[in-house]
Order: sequence, then C-alpha cells, then structure tokens
Amino acid sequence: MFKKIVIFGVGLIGGSVALALKKLPNPPKIIGVGRSNQSLQEALNLGLIDAAETNVASALENADLVLIAAPVAQTPAILKSIRPHLSVHIVITDAGSTKSDVMAYAQAELGEKFNQFVGGHPIAGAEKSGPAAAMSDLYIGKNVILTPATVTSAEAVQKVTALWQNCGALVSNMRPEEHDSVFAAVSHLPHLLAFALVEDLAKRDNAELLFKFAASGFRDFTRIAGSHPEMWRDIALANKQALLQELNTYQQAVSEMTALLENNDDEGLFALFEHASNARNAWAKSKTQ
Amino acid sequence: MFKKIVIFGVGLIGGSVALALKKLPNPPKIIGVGRSNQSLQEALNLGLIDAAETNVASALENADLVLIAAPVAQTPAILKSIRPHLSVHIVITDAGSTKSDVMAYAQAELGEKFNQFVGGHPIAGAEKSGPAAAMSDLYIGKNVILTPATVTSAEAVQKVTALWQNCGALVSNMRPEEHDSVFAAVSHLPHLLAFALVEDLAKRDNAELLFKFAASGFRDFTRIAGSHPEMWRDIALANKQALLQELNTYQQAVSEMTALLENNDDEGLFALFEHASNARNAWAKSKTQ
Repeated sequence: MFKKIVIFGVGLIGGSVALALKKLPNPPKIIGVGRSNQSLQEALNLGLIDAAETNVASALENADLVLIAAPVAQTPAILKSIRPHLSVHIVITDAGSTKSDVMAYAQAELGEKFNQFVGGHPIAGAEKSGPAAAMSDLYIGKNVILTPATVTSAEAVQKVTALWQNCGALVSNMRPEEHDSVFAAVSHLPHLLAFALVEDLAKRDNAELLFKFAASGFRDFTRIAGSHPEMWRDIALANKQALLQELNTYQQAVSEMTALLENNDDEGLFALFEHASNARNAWAKSKTQ
Repeated sequence: MFKKIVIFGVGLIGGSVALALKKLPNPPKIIGVGRSNQSLQEALNLGLIDAAETNVASALENADLVLIAAPVAQTPAILKSIRPHLSVHIVITDAGSTKSDVMAYAQAELGEKFNQFVGGHPIAGAEKSGPAAAMSDLYIGKNVILTPATVTSAEAVQKVTALWQNCGALVSNMRPEEHDSVFAAVSHLPHLLAFALVEDLAKRDNAELLFKFAASGFRDFTRIAGSHPEMWRDIALANKQALLQELNTYQQAVSEMTALLENNDDEGLFALFEHASNARNAWAKSKTQ
C-alpha cells in the first residue's frame, strides 16, 4: 500500500513505526528527516530508516505519507517546511499527545492542503526515548486515536488508519476536542497530580525521612512523576482548558472525600473506597483479557 | 532466642513472619490463634504454624512473644483477651499500619503490663492476603518501624527488634505520632488520592470511554486504588488528624500548580515538573541500590 514514507523525528515513536513497517511483505522505503544528524545517523545504523534526508523537497518526492513524530513544539515549523512540496497524493499525520492544538496548526500552516492532514495519537508507553528505544512490536494491541476534521478527505483517513493497523494497532476516531478532554482526565491529570505530590514532599525539611520510608504504593503512584518535564509542560499548556477543568473537578472530589473523613463518616468513606476499588479492579481485569 | 511465639492472625503478615522464623537454626514453636477456623486450618496445612489454639490461656503458656497481625479493629479485643494470661516475660507487639491508636489501645487494655508492649509496623506489600500468600522472604531488606513508649522496657524493644531482624528486616524506632505523620504523607495520602481519582472518573456518564483509553500511566497511578476498602477506611479514620493535614497541604500544592497553568507560566511549570522528576528519579535510584 505504501511505497515511500517520510518520518520527521525517528525516536521511540517514529522509529517503532519504521520497524513495524519493515516487517510487512512489501515494506515501503522509509526516509528519516530530523534536526539532529546524530539521531538520523543512529537511526540509519540501527536499520530503522533506509535513508536520511536534510532536504525536505527531495525527501517528499514521490512519498505517500508523512509522519510527524518530533516534539509537538516543532510541528508548526515542520508543516510550514513541507507545504510547498506536498503533491495531492501525500497524506500527512502526526503522533502528538494533544490534538486540538495540532489540528489548528495544520489548518493554519497547510491552508488548502489541510484536507490531506489527519491528526493522530498512538497510546503507547514512552519511558525510554531515542532511536535505540524503538521496537517493532510497540503498537501491537495498543490504541491509536485519529482526529480527522470535517474537511479531511476519506482517502487520507483510510491511509492513516492502514498505517497504524499495519503496526498492529487498534484505530479509533474522535473529534479533537473529545480526544483532549478524554486524555486530560485519564493521562494529563494523573501526571500533574503525581508531579504535585512528589514536589509537595520533596520540598519539605524532612524530605529525606519521608523518602526513606516511601514504599511500593508510593513508587507506582509517582512513577509518572519521573516523566520528561519539557514534554509535560508542553502538553499541559497545549491542553490547558480541559486540564484546568479536570483539576477543578478533582479538587472538588478530594474536598468531598476530606469532608467524609472530617465527619467520621465511616459508611461514606467505605462506599467511596469500595466503589473505586471495584472500578479499578474491573478495569485492570478488562485490560488483561 | 525464642522458644514459643503466638501469632494472632496468620495471614500474609503473620504467616510470613512464621515462615521466616521457621528458617532459623533453632526455630521457635509457633502457635496460631484466630477467629476463623478455616484460616487456622489452612495455616496448619501450609506448615505456617505448629499448632492452632482457640484457648488463649493455653496458647500463651510459656510463650516468649505475642504478635498481633489481625485487622487493627480487632486489636483492643485481642489485648483484653490476653491480659489475664501475660507473664512478666512475655513481650507483645503488633503489625498495624497506624501506631498512635494502637499505642492508646495497648495502654488502655494492658494497664500495668503496657511496658511489655512494643508497637510495630512492617513496611511490606500486601496486594494478596490470607495464609496462602505468606512468603518466608517477604521482609528481607524491608523497613520495620517500632514505636516504643517512654515506659516500654528495653528488653521488650530488644526482643521485638530481634524478631524482625530474624525475618531479614531493617528496624527503626520512631515516636508513634512521628510514624503516623510520615505514613500519612508517603502512604495514606497517595491511597486516598488514587481512590478519589478513580471514583471521580468512574461516576461520570462517559466512564466507559475514559477507561477504554486509560493506559499504563493510569494503571500505575491507580494501582493502590484497588486496595482493600475496609482496611483503608480504618486506616484513614485511625490516622485522621495527620491525614487531614496532608490532604489540606496537597490541595494547596495542586492549587499553586493550577495557578501556574492558568497564568501560562511555562517557566514555573517546567521548574516544578523538573524538580519533581529529578526527586522521583533520584528516589527510585536510591531504592534499587
């Protein structure tokens, strides 16, 4: 289906797409484009890409699809740089964690070619980064969400769907705002709450004592507080409105729970903990089936 | 050192102590006492205990040490039941997650024998429970905190320290209030925050959609929300004052973080995330050394 694919940013996300596509019976030619010559050379050495290009025009010649897997802050500049070289057959997609902002960038930068752009978000772990972290099976069984606009061509959606299905992923469509609202709740909020807890403890005079006795519950709760600060600053600001709403709702939920405790409402606390515990365990069970 | 040990509640916590002691060159005789004949029979069948007793007087005859490892709500009744049968040589300890309440129970129930009681808290995971979950190596390298009172006899502290060291644990002493303050911060608060997050999402109309796209970050952050509701209700109420203070401090921290986001303070958000991320990763590194 694909003959030539151009990937901007050949790290964990872009490199794993490349490795998955290389397992196809008739793999496409994969061209890497990036700011860092070192990363591109590493991607070449690791066999993630067939060629590295610094010239965007050459890279895009006869290409079927462009995947932007660089940090989201670079997306507007990348879109601007590719626009003059986009034939009507090229489909453009991205892999950013927020979608309303990316769709707005694409509309602003691609103009009349915006209908060739499909926003995308692969829901796959990213504890490690860089070309060496790429895995051919990263996306198998994982969700990928596409956020086409009303003007997006059906062909573009179909091609990007096929791209991710070829990587083994499960593809869903959402409106960009719905995507950002869902991920504000299930991903961005927990990340900010974990950062806040660690910071709350780390800045205390007795932080050393506290950390000494922190154990497995703390370890799991705060794992995502070890995430990349720059990436999470960008995600928080990009999804600001939905995230502010989630923070507000959560603070209300904590205040209600605190009131139960203040009032020694043992039945209320038990009901809350039991409902949450059942929901959490049912969710975990559903994910392992 | 020990010839006969009596364990009230032979589940994960008590059963793992029994299994660890059985590996000693001269293991003590271990007597199980419990409300449930089924659990006692299971503990006998699994070889955790040498005998099961329902008669407290017989159980305590010539015993060196009593370990109370039943749910904390049963502790006052257990202390009351053993008081008439305590020789001056018996040392009593417990394994509850909160200590101010247990020390108060012990003072009230043991009277002049309170100096033979040493509060204890092994910091060891408890995802599974019951006699079948017991492991001889559960406490190896784990922290155990003892909370002796000023009147507690040095011999009693020494014996309980030896008990846990024989299980491979690292023993520290703290005042009961200090213990409860530390664990309110590093354990009880994260548990309540995780319960609140899951409940906040689970009661929404679009809960199914949210849970569908929740991934590994959510999984780890909420693992402790799958904990035992009754146990956590009891811990929250037992450590109410320290926990209310932690909830209040945390909500202030979240409000400050929210203000950074509202004000588009990219430098402030980055500084917070970076400091937290560095602290979290340094902590994780220290725990694996």
